[in-house]
Amino acid sequence: ICNQLINNEYVMIRQASDCCMYFCLCAQQIDEEVSKLLQLKAQLGGDEDKHTFVLKTAKGTRDYNPKQMAIREKVFDTIIRCFKRHGAETIDTPVFELKETLTGKYGEDSKLIYDLKDQGGELLSLRYDLTVPFARYLAMNKITNIKRYHIAKVYRRDNPAMTRGRYREFYQCDFDIAGQYDPMIPDAECLKIVHEILSELDLGDFRIKVNDRRILDGMFEVCGVPDDKFRTICSTVDKLDKMSWEDVKNEMVNEKGLASEVADQIGEYVSMQGGKDMAEKLLQDPKLSQSKQACAGLADMKLLFSYLELFNVTDKVVFDLSLARGLDYYTGVICEAVLTQTTSAPATQERNGPAGEEGVSVGSVAGGGRYDGLVGMFDLKGRKVPCIGVSIGIERVFSIMEQKAEAEKIRTTETQVLVASAQKNLLEERLKLTAELWDAGIKAEVLYKKNPKLLSQLQHCEETGIPLVAILGEQEIKDGVVKLRTVATREEVDVSRAELVEEVKKRCQQL
Amino acid sequence: ICNQLINNEYVMIRQASDCCMYFCLCAQQIDEEVSKLLQLKAQLGGDEDKHTFVLKTAKGTRDYNPKQMAIREKVFDTIIRCFKRHGAETIDTPVFELKETLTGKYGEDSKLIYDLKDQGGELLSLRYDLTVPFARYLAMNKITNIKRYHIAKVYRRDNPAMTRGRYREFYQCDFDIAGQYDPMIPDAECLKIVHEILSELDLGDFRIKVNDRRILDGMFEVCGVPDDKFRTICSTVDKLDKMSWEDVKNEMVNEKGLASEVADQIGEYVSMQGGKDMAEKLLQDPKLSQSKQACAGLADMKLLFSYLELFNVTDKVVFDLSLARGLDYYTGVICEAVLTQTTSAPATQERNGPAGEEGVSVGSVAGGGRYDGLVGMFDLKGRKVPCIGVSIGIERVFSIMEQKAEAEKIRTTETQVLVASAQKNLLEERLKLTAELWDAGIKAEVLYKKNPKLLSQLQHCEETGIPLVAILGEQEIKDGVVKLRTVATREEVDVSRAELVEEVKKRCQQL
Repeated sequence: ICNQLINNEYVMIRQASDCCMYFCLCAQQIDEEVSKLLQLKAQLGGDEDKHTFVLKTAKGTRDYNPKQMAIREKVFDTIIRCFKRHGAETIDTPVFELKETLTGKYGEDSKLIYDLKDQGGELLSLRYDLTVPFARYLAMNKITNIKRYHIAKVYRRDNPAMTRGRYREFYQCDFDIAGQYDPMIPDAECLKIVHEILSELDLGDFRIKVNDRRILDGMFEVCGVPDDKFRTICSTVDKLDKMSWEDVKNEMVNEKGLASEVADQIGEYVSMQGGKDMAEKLLQDPKLSQSKQACAGLADMKLLFSYLELFNVTDKVVFDLSLARGLDYYTGVICEAVLTQTTSAPATQERNGPAGEEGVSVGSVAGGGRYDGLVGMFDLKGRKVPCIGVSIGIERVFSIMEQKAEAEKIRTTETQVLVASAQKNLLEERLKLTAELWDAGIKAEVLYKKNPKLLSQLQHCEETGIPLVAILGEQEIKDGVVKLRTVATREEVDVSRAELVEEVKKRCQQL
Repeated sequence: ICNQLINNEYVMIRQASDCCMYFCLCAQQIDEEVSKLLQLKAQLGGDEDKHTFVLKTAKGTRDYNPKQMAIREKVFDTIIRCFKRHGAETIDTPVFELKETLTGKYGEDSKLIYDLKDQGGELLSLRYDLTVPFARYLAMNKITNIKRYHIAKVYRRDNPAMTRGRYREFYQCDFDIAGQYDPMIPDAECLKIVHEILSELDLGDFRIKVNDRRILDGMFEVCGVPDDKFRTICSTVDKLDKMSWEDVKNEMVNEKGLASEVADQIGEYVSMQGGKDMAEKLLQDPKLSQSKQACAGLADMKLLFSYLELFNVTDKVVFDLSLARGLDYYTGVICEAVLTQTTSAPATQERNGPAGEEGVSVGSVAGGGRYDGLVGMFDLKGRKVPCIGVSIGIERVFSIMEQKAEAEKIRTTETQVLVASAQKNLLEERLKLTAELWDAGIKAEVLYKKNPKLLSQLQHCEETGIPLVAILGEQEIKDGVVKLRTVATREEVDVSRAELVEEVKKRCQQL
């Protein structure tokens, strides 16, 4: 229930009990209203009535309830196991950086950075991704090679679309390989990792698109795009996954001033998709082969595909000349994974929806690329550390998993046994036995009531999925035993107190 | 290397290579200088030279390197296992809240809250603890009972003392029980949890002090402290762990205007420490027994100790009338755990050092209490949800563990086997075998070089602790085998390709 009480003027936002749902559905409109009202309130100055607050999380953010956390932990576990399987270490960096650390790294997206208020001292901003802090970390500690993963939240003042898994606070799961190595081997491993994770998460069919910034730049060069328009035309190409070629061409010609023939030449290239064979064919392309950097990119693409064959992942990887990616810092291979099946409604919705993060396809669940120049931007002498990395866009994965799990009953605790009693005045005995179990490493609960009914104790087990109940009564205490009940079968046996721990362990292994 | 180039005026901060160390040691002075210079620079406007940035993390924050992360994961694992053993679920909340959500919850400490810049829209602040967001979550979702843990970073614009484990960004590990239950059962479980965690972390001997806000208030009442001075006198009492009684009395009398006789009476009480017997004795105290709330608190203290006896933790728990705790929101039992052994130098240093977080003893590693009114502050109708919780102050634990681990070699990866070769031109064979191992769930690495030397491959294993090497040569490939080498013993045996996965698994279990 959220009431806005301003100068006897009631603004009733919601009186029904489920205010969260409501905020999810039309959060944007409400946010705007609320923010206007709060400004008005601030002008009026009064904050006397302590109940005039709005009970909500900040725009574009959400809490995770226990069920969502159980899903999140499962997803993270899959991802972390994969990263560790590939020999990665992990690091962590602060949630905010010096403002200047982020300056000049994100191009047009910089306007989406959250700044902290100047409260005296340093000017700070919330991290926008994990890549720039990683590069700062490498430069600051003079690290020239590392394979690390980093799972943490990042912050973007974007227009949220929370029902579709787009938030202002969201997780990124990054895996990066830094160091001077023989070409395309780390790049191939990054794609293998995306393949492994998306397969294991079982989200339906997917495709991993790859391209290379050098091929893109070479293509712009031979098509006659002026040098200073490479980046902006690149941004326009990047929209091809959610706009038709006509609209993209229109933007190139009318907004960005490109000659129509030049755009048409680009149009021919960006419609191409293939594999290793396409790289070979383009190396023979009379026009594209004129560009040195295109040739370098195409030769590497050929090599990349030969490694991908050894890794057995070419079934999902497509060389796609229309893949551009928005961020400024990429210098070589770029990639992006999209789900191709749309089993759930919101996924369909999203694929036709507005632009995703980083101007990336909205069905996108992973992306990344090579950024050989970023670390050098933090080094006084500009010493470069070549890097390649991929980022798993976990929020969309959560959304899909949550929908799948909606009907399912998911346990949110791991409790193995509830210590219960059928008779009165046995609280102390229950507490004593519970502590014995805790001290033996058993996950045990006891109801915080002096004399709970047996039925309510059994109900607690049913509701939370506790498989076993250890029931104490006067007789059991006298006999030095416990009645061990299996919740599912209602079967009960007496177990001696001395053997209880082993018996609980054994049964939980069998479950 | 950090140069500040401003209008031909060089300010040399550091030319040596290890700028991190330097910043750690005298970070505060440098920060102040840097911030002045940055402001000057901002006024001058120029940001032409891209190398004038300061390469550091924000004041009071730090990165975690892989070794620190390995320690952190071990500590978290111990703590989470304990929380799960006690049947807790977990939730997560956003890193920032509406500013007004935090308003009026922290008393004098509110000045330490980080605000976000007003960039249009809502006014936001970084969370200051996990308790207020938890209360907001309960009220917003109308949850009346839950047992949950939450491990996340919180933010305080305090004076950092990083060498002593005090940061502006730091982890809290909170366990809370919300709900209307029979008295002192959840309270006892919270203390049991602190006991279990501190025992398992093996940080040396510790003591858990307990008190009750009602006893403190009753004590102030019967000693003749005016009602409106309860909170401020409470804050002064809270300083007893780092100030002498003389200084505390001085503050009460001269700064806070308390009569000297009143202070003396308080002085008699706050020197008392004991157990259940002390609670019983104080219930007979002619003066203290005049206060209804003191009696209620003392009766509950007696009950609490009877449960603690059943839980077998009275060896470490002390009823200490000088324990006050700074935060406003506590209403009943309060507690705080301190390490009593000071095996490591910084711990000693800290015990004599300046004030800790929340005005808590600087040797403090856990704290908490009952806050029955906080959720009601977020409910329009003021409906209360009684809560008790404890927070493990993990940063100090990290500091101690890191010092212990300084000499030790800690693995930062979990790789089981390196795929290597002694001969040239076997990159493709190595990649193929590595992918086979990954696909079978084996943690495997391969060097990203076409023709690495066997020695450098073996060195990589020594350095990172990889226990096994799968060596491929022309002959092995022909024979369908792999030479499996145990790094520690240098022993080598041929294993058939078909049996390699099982063999690696078997050996790693034995290690």
